[in-house]
Amino acid sequence: MKPIDRTLAARLASATPGSTVRLCGHVHRRRELAAVTFLVLRDRSGLAQVVVKPAEGQQVPPEETPVEVTGIATATPQAPGGVEVASPVVTALSEPALTPPVELWRPEPTVTLPALLDHAPVTWRHPAVRARWDLAAASVRGFRKTLDAAGFTEVHSPKIVESATESGANVFAIDYFGRPAYLAQSPQFYKQQLVGIFERVYEAGPVFRAEPHDTVRHLAEYVSLDVELGFIRDHRDVLAVLREVLAGMGRAIETYAADAVERLGVELPVVPPEIPVVHFADALELVGAPADEPDLAPEHERALGAWARETHGSDLLAVEGYPMRKRPFYTHPWSRQARSSEGGSNSFDLLFRGLELVTGGQRLHRLADYERAITERGEQPAAYASYLQAFAHGMPPHGGFALGLERWVARLVRAANVREVTLFPRDLHRLTP
Amino acid sequence: MKPIDRTLAARLASATPGSTVRLCGHVHRRRELAAVTFLVLRDRSGLAQVVVKPAEGQQVPPEETPVEVTGIATATPQAPGGVEVASPVVTALSEPALTPPVELWRPEPTVTLPALLDHAPVTWRHPAVRARWDLAAASVRGFRKTLDAAGFTEVHSPKIVESATESGANVFAIDYFGRPAYLAQSPQFYKQQLVGIFERVYEAGPVFRAEPHDTVRHLAEYVSLDVELGFIRDHRDVLAVLREVLAGMGRAIETYAADAVERLGVELPVVPPEIPVVHFADALELVGAPADEPDLAPEHERALGAWARETHGSDLLAVEGYPMRKRPFYTHPWSRQARSSEGGSNSFDLLFRGLELVTGGQRLHRLADYERAITERGEQPAAYASYLQAFAHGMPPHGGFALGLERWVARLVRAANVREVTLFPRDLHRLTP
Repeated sequence: MKPIDRTLAARLASATPGSTVRLCGHVHRRRELAAVTFLVLRDRSGLAQVVVKPAEGQQVPPEETPVEVTGIATATPQAPGGVEVASPVVTALSEPALTPPVELWRPEPTVTLPALLDHAPVTWRHPAVRARWDLAAASVRGFRKTLDAAGFTEVHSPKIVESATESGANVFAIDYFGRPAYLAQSPQFYKQQLVGIFERVYEAGPVFRAEPHDTVRHLAEYVSLDVELGFIRDHRDVLAVLREVLAGMGRAIETYAADAVERLGVELPVVPPEIPVVHFADALELVGAPADEPDLAPEHERALGAWARETHGSDLLAVEGYPMRKRPFYTHPWSRQARSSEGGSNSFDLLFRGLELVTGGQRLHRLADYERAITERGEQPAAYASYLQAFAHGMPPHGGFALGLERWVARLVRAANVREVTLFPRDLHRLTP
Repeated sequence: MKPIDRTLAARLASATPGSTVRLCGHVHRRRELAAVTFLVLRDRSGLAQVVVKPAEGQQVPPEETPVEVTGIATATPQAPGGVEVASPVVTALSEPALTPPVELWRPEPTVTLPALLDHAPVTWRHPAVRARWDLAAASVRGFRKTLDAAGFTEVHSPKIVESATESGANVFAIDYFGRPAYLAQSPQFYKQQLVGIFERVYEAGPVFRAEPHDTVRHLAEYVSLDVELGFIRDHRDVLAVLREVLAGMGRAIETYAADAVERLGVELPVVPPEIPVVHFADALELVGAPADEPDLAPEHERALGAWARETHGSDLLAVEGYPMRKRPFYTHPWSRQARSSEGGSNSFDLLFRGLELVTGGQRLHRLADYERAITERGEQPAAYASYLQAFAHGMPPHGGFALGLERWVARLVRAANVREVTLFPRDLHRLTP
């Protein structure tokens, strides 16, 4: 006999009252009253209530045990969705589960950060914790969808690289068949080379930083959403793509993670038709900082965020024209006619509610400019031979940006620590689970 | 004055004859005849022909130089798509490009494998080489689309892991803040733990194998398409998902990489409504191998592929019931009632045209089974403490599979070497570009 099709918890409300249904999930909550036992079942779609009467002789295994429940769909105003399962046959699918380190059935996860991280395989089962990753997964989906529609090609660049030259410090060394190699800190060099091939590329993959500081914002491994495109006029074209990507990520969250938005009270960013832009020098002036500051301090970023909200009604603000000396060697110098900017660059930081979320800009594209920039750092262009091949053989004006997935989600849920939104974080102290 | 919108090469055929168009791309081919110079421009969408007359005084820079071309769309039966650009203004966007190591404009890439790999940033620009990756990108897109629609959640598991216990050998060691760590050989342990959280998960990310052999099939780093799902009856449910995934990948290739299919003469797999399955013991008998063989040799796999084609009209054949002793410790033993299979497992290999493409199956899900399996390997369960947490706290019957992206594309284009379809391969000898 063919088994009855499985009903997902979220679909139980649509079941015909009186029909036999079959649900599969974990025992989310077992509540034994004198006259009845309630079994709340949790599956990937949500929760469903099962009512067990003592006379039915059904054992309800302890919380977290996976079970199969077959019973009668019964309309009950008190049940979530208005339908519960009565007269059930409850079959445990494993031995009784050990009591979780955190009570997963409580409305809020009353869990300290160390407990969350040490018991990640179990604590992520809490619906309010899981919801954080639902935001992440929907965001990546929106990222890809926007770029696929705009003619970008998804690429996968190597994570094992020959040299630590890109930014020099904070790289992980590996033993590569007896010779040294490194873990890529970003796909930067590769995504540029790939612009010569595909013109528009993106990658959503891991990057690695041997970050020696223990902060709430840094991870040793995180997911970088990287974009690069050719035939731009300057960094403003990159910013326009970033605007579309952020809008698309917001739409995807609304579409695919609506439950998480509601449960976590997420305020999605207001993405204006055009992201407001302020020049770095003007930003310093706005916040009353000295004109020779080389960078924005966190309090400056916060003040600019508030200013953008008030003046432009925008959660997003781009600061362009950062001093060249604070940007990587491949950064294109300032080129916009609209204003002069001595020592400035065609690069930007995007602030999201007053915190830096994205760095992007135009890159150099002429071989001679690279040779000069590398020489000025006191290095030999020959050390970059494989990267420079692309430029020797013709590269268009291009630029791009990188957005850290965990940092984005942390902002959305106003997490105090980026580890709260990372499935299995890696840092100075943590290598498990 | 607002610049004229850019026209992609592939859209030139739709331009109004006589209108002014602006194209951007690389000089794919410069052909100087006595009376006229042809410039074939290549952008991300394809090729377009530009005609330059000597009297127009336009210099056409050498091949691969990025250019902007503004001119008049002109109907010409001989041009690709029936429209070319006449009376152009040609602007070089960088210095003249160096002559490529391979003539990219020739219909076929007459390039040896070492040249292809050494000059990857340039050789991948050849349309017939680039088409290989178009197949890969479309495949991943179809993989995700199918699984998104089936309620799967995309995850990103850590690539830096504490122990090399999963399969023991061939791991890359890294210096992790002064202590040893390893690069993940697969997301296997994590995707299982994540089934307890999301029930259905997938990941498309890099995996790392310190493969000491120099073969045409192995890479030190490749893209693994990983799937895992809970509440299955046995491995046949996993196989049913794999069937949908392969069908979805084929459809995505047809939709998003039609040009690549035509150019490379790809024969997409025939995916029958149900993938034919043969038991390992029957497979041995079919190919005339001794009944006590622990595995299938390549010539057996080829013979089975031919048999599946003849008997079932299928490019795909699943072999189930592999001996437990040849499978990883987390493999679930044989459980189907339909036939006995002493020492067999609920696992399968999927053959695609007689070559192994996917390995999958049901996993153990009870803590006691894991403790026994690990002890039987002569290891301590305590060494797996963080993995085993998930099982102690209740895990449903589950299973999954892993499919190597590069191997899949290599099969589609019948590449002799998997490196031909890998953007920047990593192997025993190769760490650049």
